[in-house]
Amino acid sequence: MPISPDARAALSMVVGAAWVRDDEQARLAYGTDALQRGAPADLVLIPADVDEIAAIARLCHEHRVPLVVRGAGTGYTGGAVPVQGGVVVSMERFTRILEIDDANLLAVVQPNVLTADLQTAVEARGLFYPPDPASSNISALGGNVAECAGGPRAVKYGTTRRYVLALQAVLPTGEIIRTGSKAVKNVVGYDLTQLLVGSEGTLAVLTEITLRLVPRPVATATLQASFATIEAAVGGVTALLAARVVPATIELVDGGSLAAVERYLGRPVAPPGTGAMLVIEMDGQPAGVEEETHLVSGALASAGALSVHRAATSAERDALWEARRELSFALRAAAPRKINHDVSVPRGRLPQLFALIAALEREHDLWIPSFGHAGDGNVHVNIMVDPSDGDVLARAERAARALFEGVVALEGSISGEHGIGMSKAPYLSLELAPDVIALMQRVKAAFDPRHILNPGKIWMG
Amino acid sequence: MPISPDARAALSMVVGAAWVRDDEQARLAYGTDALQRGAPADLVLIPADVDEIAAIARLCHEHRVPLVVRGAGTGYTGGAVPVQGGVVVSMERFTRILEIDDANLLAVVQPNVLTADLQTAVEARGLFYPPDPASSNISALGGNVAECAGGPRAVKYGTTRRYVLALQAVLPTGEIIRTGSKAVKNVVGYDLTQLLVGSEGTLAVLTEITLRLVPRPVATATLQASFATIEAAVGGVTALLAARVVPATIELVDGGSLAAVERYLGRPVAPPGTGAMLVIEMDGQPAGVEEETHLVSGALASAGALSVHRAATSAERDALWEARRELSFALRAAAPRKINHDVSVPRGRLPQLFALIAALEREHDLWIPSFGHAGDGNVHVNIMVDPSDGDVLARAERAARALFEGVVALEGSISGEHGIGMSKAPYLSLELAPDVIALMQRVKAAFDPRHILNPGKIWMG
Repeated sequence: MPISPDARAALSMVVGAAWVRDDEQARLAYGTDALQRGAPADLVLIPADVDEIAAIARLCHEHRVPLVVRGAGTGYTGGAVPVQGGVVVSMERFTRILEIDDANLLAVVQPNVLTADLQTAVEARGLFYPPDPASSNISALGGNVAECAGGPRAVKYGTTRRYVLALQAVLPTGEIIRTGSKAVKNVVGYDLTQLLVGSEGTLAVLTEITLRLVPRPVATATLQASFATIEAAVGGVTALLAARVVPATIELVDGGSLAAVERYLGRPVAPPGTGAMLVIEMDGQPAGVEEETHLVSGALASAGALSVHRAATSAERDALWEARRELSFALRAAAPRKINHDVSVPRGRLPQLFALIAALEREHDLWIPSFGHAGDGNVHVNIMVDPSDGDVLARAERAARALFEGVVALEGSISGEHGIGMSKAPYLSLELAPDVIALMQRVKAAFDPRHILNPGKIWMG
Repeated sequence: MPISPDARAALSMVVGAAWVRDDEQARLAYGTDALQRGAPADLVLIPADVDEIAAIARLCHEHRVPLVVRGAGTGYTGGAVPVQGGVVVSMERFTRILEIDDANLLAVVQPNVLTADLQTAVEARGLFYPPDPASSNISALGGNVAECAGGPRAVKYGTTRRYVLALQAVLPTGEIIRTGSKAVKNVVGYDLTQLLVGSEGTLAVLTEITLRLVPRPVATATLQASFATIEAAVGGVTALLAARVVPATIELVDGGSLAAVERYLGRPVAPPGTGAMLVIEMDGQPAGVEEETHLVSGALASAGALSVHRAATSAERDALWEARRELSFALRAAAPRKINHDVSVPRGRLPQLFALIAALEREHDLWIPSFGHAGDGNVHVNIMVDPSDGDVLARAERAARALFEGVVALEGSISGEHGIGMSKAPYLSLELAPDVIALMQRVKAAFDPRHILNPGKIWMG
């Protein structure tokens, strides 16, 4: 249903004509994100402040117009785009770091601050914001919070969830609320802050985020461990868990992903003969880092690593992390389309997950390079397809369903960090029972009685 | 309104006559907890399993009977007792550790497993469950989850919230649900697991808890730092934050609390002349612990500690922690009644909080010994009263309100770990805006449309 002329006029007046976009090009641009699916926006509004967002929400509620919030648009599940038109509210004017509070170890930011920009700013003050999605140079903190972004350092430091202390948000009915506080311990009423984290833009519009910070680690050691096969590398991860060490990161890259990134970067990343590799980082105080590095190196050698190499310079470390960070782009360049499934299993069940991926490659005749946050049991399983080939698409669809069923059978989760959005909504009921989905929908209605906020996400329709 | 004879008969039949209590003594016993307030239960039921709880919930929903869940009854805010009769469901038969999973670093427990019993069981396997409320020997994990218990180790390890991966629960309408999974990263739908943590028994009955574990630290160092005054000790905490170290615990004990526990234990705890003390613990691998201990000792000495003593033996360490753990009992023995307010402020604002406490003591002519988790900004402020003295009670009430107002003005929280329950419900609106309370009540209704589960908690009526 198109937006009525009255509603369109009232909505446009809130932000002023200079901040309205409704030309074809903008409608399409704001109707797609990193998932490369979505429907055009009917109207794009670029508000200046929280009061304008509240006014937009009230109007959308009144006129029953879908309201979709867009940050940097780097999400992989379509969280930032309409499925059936409506208003897209772009947060592009919310780009200020409002406060870095050394005494209380926290920062207050507007939602469209890029993750890496906050990291740089706090590190200059001896502080540290640990969550580091591979997209950190291009993704914004609002989206990180809305999807509960993870990244390599979650092994030691946890995901975005752990760092969100307080939020300012606009309800879809127009109220401006504040949840949480600047205290790190707060059990006053229901934890609406944690409920909003990972709610994928379906419960409220985030307008201000208060983040807990930690001291910046003063020392770092980065190890690259090469293994002959993916099975051996997964065995290395299991060995680290058994050795009872908790490095900051335990990243796994399989052979196909490694070859793709070496082609993409035009340089070797791992020694010849490497069938899969781990990148492990320790951080903290210098002596503690040395001690952990020793333990980790020993465990990896015992687990059959072909080589364990420690980055000797920061340039070498940066080169290794660049390879990790560019994996996703390298795979995108390696096939017409990459369908990224960020599944998650209990940490000790990675061998079963990788056996499943190998079986899916054989059974469905697909290339499925995989990499990811092995220390958390969270793996990016990339099904490579040519979207012009209907047969390969059908096989990819069958493989995805079998993957999700397998992950649930392993007591894992169909999404570890990207969310459900529109891309995984068809699979939600593989993991969640009908009573749980019904309960979530009642919670949704408690926030959004007219279902205007980001419709068609998490569940369909 | 009393329970109808029909409802009473049906409810009793669910558990069988052997597991029903309705004698006067039981009704009173199950109508009070560590807060020492509450109303008698009309009927006490002791179910055997989740299906019996679901049947009880359906009957209570049908007959609109209040349903209050009781675990170990050690909460300080009255979460486990009725305010107006109804059914008390006692979880005393849910005492099994169902699984300790070494490979996946997790445990599955029934809710009435005592916290210390789980800790002992997992430590024997080289694993560690960090949350350690002072009540750990007598409090149960179900209550820990329902209230989001904290404890000294939250500085480094976070509170109970961080360790809850999955829950089985019974909704007040009778459905049995499962939330979360055994994967440490899971962003599938709204995080109902985190919403249930800290919901104080008002949203669902917890029946099974899956907890994340970490490797057991192999080394520990415990420091006791003595200061001449509370102001100096608080300065020591600020110095540790500024030194950018994160010990496992930073506990603070003021002079009044110290004197009370020395009397209670009949032995000295700190050197003569100590006006306040800190207990700081480092844990991890040996070299890392030594390195941190060196940094912490240096920071404390620079901050003006009269002495910094490291526990030389495990007996000495245990004696120190016994003193910390018995503080609450020692203060209870020091006056007819202790009103414990677990307020929380941004970590750098402890000096302002302790200045406020000192001002309240002077202005209201009260003894307010205070101690707690200084590294988190979370302090137990104990207003000591004789409940037979109406004047002192009125002064205590005025001091409490001023304390809460002051804490909110410092951007803190009126409860850091005990919850709101019935004791702080009158103060909820000091911290939360009407729109936020209304939203929480809509979330409550999404779970419990007839408001049968733990009525009169968090908000009144």
